[in-house]
Amino acid sequence: MRASQFFISTLKDAPADAEIVSHKLMMRAGMIKKLSAGIYNYMPMGLRVIRKIENIIREEMNRAGAIELSMPVVQPAELWQETGRFDKMGEEMLRIKDRHGRDFVLQPTSEEVITDIVRQELRSYRQLPKNLYQIQTKFRDERRPRFGIMRGREFTMKDAYSFHASFEDLQREYQNMYQTYSRIFTRLGLEFRAVSADTGAIGGTGSHEFHVIAETGEDALAYNPDSEYAANVELAEALAPSISRPAPTAELTKVHTPGAKTIEQLADFFKISPAQTLKSVIVDGEDGVPVLLLLRGDHELNEVKASKLAGVFSPLRFATPATIRDAFGAEPGSLGPIGFKGKVYVDRSAAVMADFVIGANESDYHYTGANFGRDFAEPEVADIRNVVAGDPAPDGKGTLAICRGIEVGHIFQLRTRYSAAMGAKFIGEDGKEQVMEMGCYGVGVTRIMGAAIEQNFDDKGIIWPTAIAPFALVICPMGWSRSEEVRNTAQKLYTELQAAGIDVILDDRDERPGVMFADWELIGVPHRVVIGDRGLKEGVLEYQGRRDTAATKLPLAEIADYLRRVVQ
Amino acid sequence: MRASQFFISTLKDAPADAEIVSHKLMMRAGMIKKLSAGIYNYMPMGLRVIRKIENIIREEMNRAGAIELSMPVVQPAELWQETGRFDKMGEEMLRIKDRHGRDFVLQPTSEEVITDIVRQELRSYRQLPKNLYQIQTKFRDERRPRFGIMRGREFTMKDAYSFHASFEDLQREYQNMYQTYSRIFTRLGLEFRAVSADTGAIGGTGSHEFHVIAETGEDALAYNPDSEYAANVELAEALAPSISRPAPTAELTKVHTPGAKTIEQLADFFKISPAQTLKSVIVDGEDGVPVLLLLRGDHELNEVKASKLAGVFSPLRFATPATIRDAFGAEPGSLGPIGFKGKVYVDRSAAVMADFVIGANESDYHYTGANFGRDFAEPEVADIRNVVAGDPAPDGKGTLAICRGIEVGHIFQLRTRYSAAMGAKFIGEDGKEQVMEMGCYGVGVTRIMGAAIEQNFDDKGIIWPTAIAPFALVICPMGWSRSEEVRNTAQKLYTELQAAGIDVILDDRDERPGVMFADWELIGVPHRVVIGDRGLKEGVLEYQGRRDTAATKLPLAEIADYLRRVVQ
Repeated sequence: MRASQFFISTLKDAPADAEIVSHKLMMRAGMIKKLSAGIYNYMPMGLRVIRKIENIIREEMNRAGAIELSMPVVQPAELWQETGRFDKMGEEMLRIKDRHGRDFVLQPTSEEVITDIVRQELRSYRQLPKNLYQIQTKFRDERRPRFGIMRGREFTMKDAYSFHASFEDLQREYQNMYQTYSRIFTRLGLEFRAVSADTGAIGGTGSHEFHVIAETGEDALAYNPDSEYAANVELAEALAPSISRPAPTAELTKVHTPGAKTIEQLADFFKISPAQTLKSVIVDGEDGVPVLLLLRGDHELNEVKASKLAGVFSPLRFATPATIRDAFGAEPGSLGPIGFKGKVYVDRSAAVMADFVIGANESDYHYTGANFGRDFAEPEVADIRNVVAGDPAPDGKGTLAICRGIEVGHIFQLRTRYSAAMGAKFIGEDGKEQVMEMGCYGVGVTRIMGAAIEQNFDDKGIIWPTAIAPFALVICPMGWSRSEEVRNTAQKLYTELQAAGIDVILDDRDERPGVMFADWELIGVPHRVVIGDRGLKEGVLEYQGRRDTAATKLPLAEIADYLRRVVQ
Repeated sequence: MRASQFFISTLKDAPADAEIVSHKLMMRAGMIKKLSAGIYNYMPMGLRVIRKIENIIREEMNRAGAIELSMPVVQPAELWQETGRFDKMGEEMLRIKDRHGRDFVLQPTSEEVITDIVRQELRSYRQLPKNLYQIQTKFRDERRPRFGIMRGREFTMKDAYSFHASFEDLQREYQNMYQTYSRIFTRLGLEFRAVSADTGAIGGTGSHEFHVIAETGEDALAYNPDSEYAANVELAEALAPSISRPAPTAELTKVHTPGAKTIEQLADFFKISPAQTLKSVIVDGEDGVPVLLLLRGDHELNEVKASKLAGVFSPLRFATPATIRDAFGAEPGSLGPIGFKGKVYVDRSAAVMADFVIGANESDYHYTGANFGRDFAEPEVADIRNVVAGDPAPDGKGTLAICRGIEVGHIFQLRTRYSAAMGAKFIGEDGKEQVMEMGCYGVGVTRIMGAAIEQNFDDKGIIWPTAIAPFALVICPMGWSRSEEVRNTAQKLYTELQAAGIDVILDDRDERPGVMFADWELIGVPHRVVIGDRGLKEGVLEYQGRRDTAATKLPLAEIADYLRRVVQ
């Protein structure tokens, strides 16, 4: 490609609504252009990245034996009513009426349609297993779309669905997809981690998320550096401490604690560590009476774990100040179990504490020297906190580390959640009708683009992995219109590299070197060759990788060979 | 690909709602699957065809210097209001409200969005020209979707938009696209014809349609076999006859013609040729008074031409029986110009007639021996009929022939219709601001699939051109599970052909020969090799092209070379 014939549009500054680095850089590099909130044009530069991501995904899915098809963006509501998701999905699912007043949805995902296809097409165990996938436009009407294409409304997803005659066969394919996803992210050139995950709203049992590792990631991931264990913090088990609870030694004493509402203020007030206080979190209960959750002051509630506790309203909802006042007779900031009549859970790590500080259920008062059993009934013990770095690993092989990640893939064992609801059955080898086992496997194509940038950038711009860079290599001639020798050398090298199958762009825009370099560093092309009169006199060109701090001079005669080795 | 690992699903009978051959065959061959009226799943077999069509289009558009981008399916209404099309497009454009009540549309085409991009991105003559295209999902909420994916609601289109500093440059790019389209349809392996066309609702000046030639085509195309002239019959000019009008010889006579309402009945009644009668067509006028159009009895009204006549309501609307009774005092079937007070047009070919039969504006009565000027005022002469085979060609180089076609591409010189409405301006070389010239170029990707079948089928099924066949070649082993020699030979040939880059499928389903052959003939794979024990004993395999009436025996040693030559 010649730059003069392409569409290059870089900006000095990102628009004000771009909050995160990938969004800013994508806008500045002219990769995407906003059309409406959460809806973006994929500009020529950005579309090249998307197509390369799609191709790698397609190749690996095909290699894994999955078969590509394509399901419509506009889908009839009836199928979504069969599984109950038409009502359950809420406002995030965009609903349409056609000219005849019939209800349709824009696909946020395609479990219903694929199950409808399969229940008509596959009737015998001999036709199973099948793994069918599409790379297709999805729409989710996010209340507050943000982060550019990381949490947009219209986006591209690869979604695959597999159907099986037995759970064992689903597990085999699940492993196959796990390995396929690992190959995909490896080929994309991204540092990633697969973690055990909650199955969330899609349902089913068993699920892994694939995360691109980035400090800016939305998700915290717990992993054991000494073993294979890795899980989303949402799901990672916090083991019970190996120590047992000491005997009480202090008296229960009510203390006036004016202004000490947060755990930090309380620890400051008493000059103790937050780990010696007990945090009270109040959530709505199923029967209308709130539920009290007790955690060590330095620990955080895990909402996914809490939402699964018996008697807790799901999805989890924090109690309102009014509910709290009714049930505890005090303001938030001074709450505790003593005198509370409702259900109480205590986290495993808090359950081994003694002589702790806790709210007195009287505004601006706390107890010191509080103890379980003695001062209030023993609460039910449960794992309700987020793990932290240094916690013992649930696999018993060392301690956990924490990193942050951006979810770009998710695989699920759906089992019969959809196939049973929609009657996707087959005749087994024994002649009997059975419900199919089902798995689903998603990758956020456009999300990967954002995640790749969050992982790979510097103060000059994006640093693409070569496999998904819009161009693998740029040739920058110094003085395109001025020097015939520079022009001829550049064109010859361009032709030679193209013939070698390298995705090269020749910058023939005749811009000043500063402008040219700034553009390509912002756009993030990983390899650059500079051709200038001075170098040509010595018979050399300059090569610089996007992460290199300086250029390397290379003899003209060797450059093509060198690049063929380096650019891959 | 191995057939056992692919998704093959053929049907003996087409569903009842499939009216035309391509729809029937696509359903029977398992290429598409209906999800809702006019909305289809592209099944694995069909998607392979679509991807091949897309790739050829993409390669040729890139080669022509166009640049790919992608615009969202969901587009904000505001842009469509700027050009007035939000109101003008009517119910065919699917409208949506998002969760915040804002108006959006599903893109039926993207003139507004691309013009919005360009008015922000391109500001100088130095950035022009640019031709930007996408291959994207479109939606048109047809009142009566039919013909499968030929007139579906959701479909895939390649739409390109070019922007220019001058009309001359637009004309140059228009020629470039004309040639690019010709290359695309040639590479697709289709017999096609480019014809001059009406610009219709998209507006602008100058336009060509590209038609796949098929007897079942919706459009009639007029062309001159002896020259380059070709036009949609909608647009083809019917020249005035070279003869002049004879003098009247007969008396005007009113005749009772009971039951003679149509031209055929009238000609039968008087034992004359329909060409000796005059047909009266009544359409609504702009001022509420109907307009009378007179044609030779054997000619057909051209509605596109008629809609452009001064005083005729546009879009053309035939007068209701009530309006006709008010204006003519008679029922349709006996109408004519004598006594009618409104505007009358006569077709060029009818204007040279004398002593003709015409309705008397009295139910069940006609005049014989009617004449222009003598019996009623000379009407205004205009070209308002469809040309027919044998008419003189408008380019004066012979006579016209007529064929039928399916429109699969359309190129337009839009000029400033959208750029002026939306303020897409640039600073010219002279420093002055100017409105951009604009062209647009569409290809119906999924429509091509249907058109290719309408052109290429027989009683066994589809006959794909090799370039867009789901598989170029099928290997059919006779007795897959029974004969090790057959199996080994088949696998060896399969591997060899794959390595040679041939898109081959190996039918390892162990089906009976009859089933296997019927499947592949229905699916339309253009090349087939049969491997059987009997042949192998003689050292031969059988090759048969999809259009061949018999197989050719070929020595095993030569088959791979032979196929490499034949399959392309």
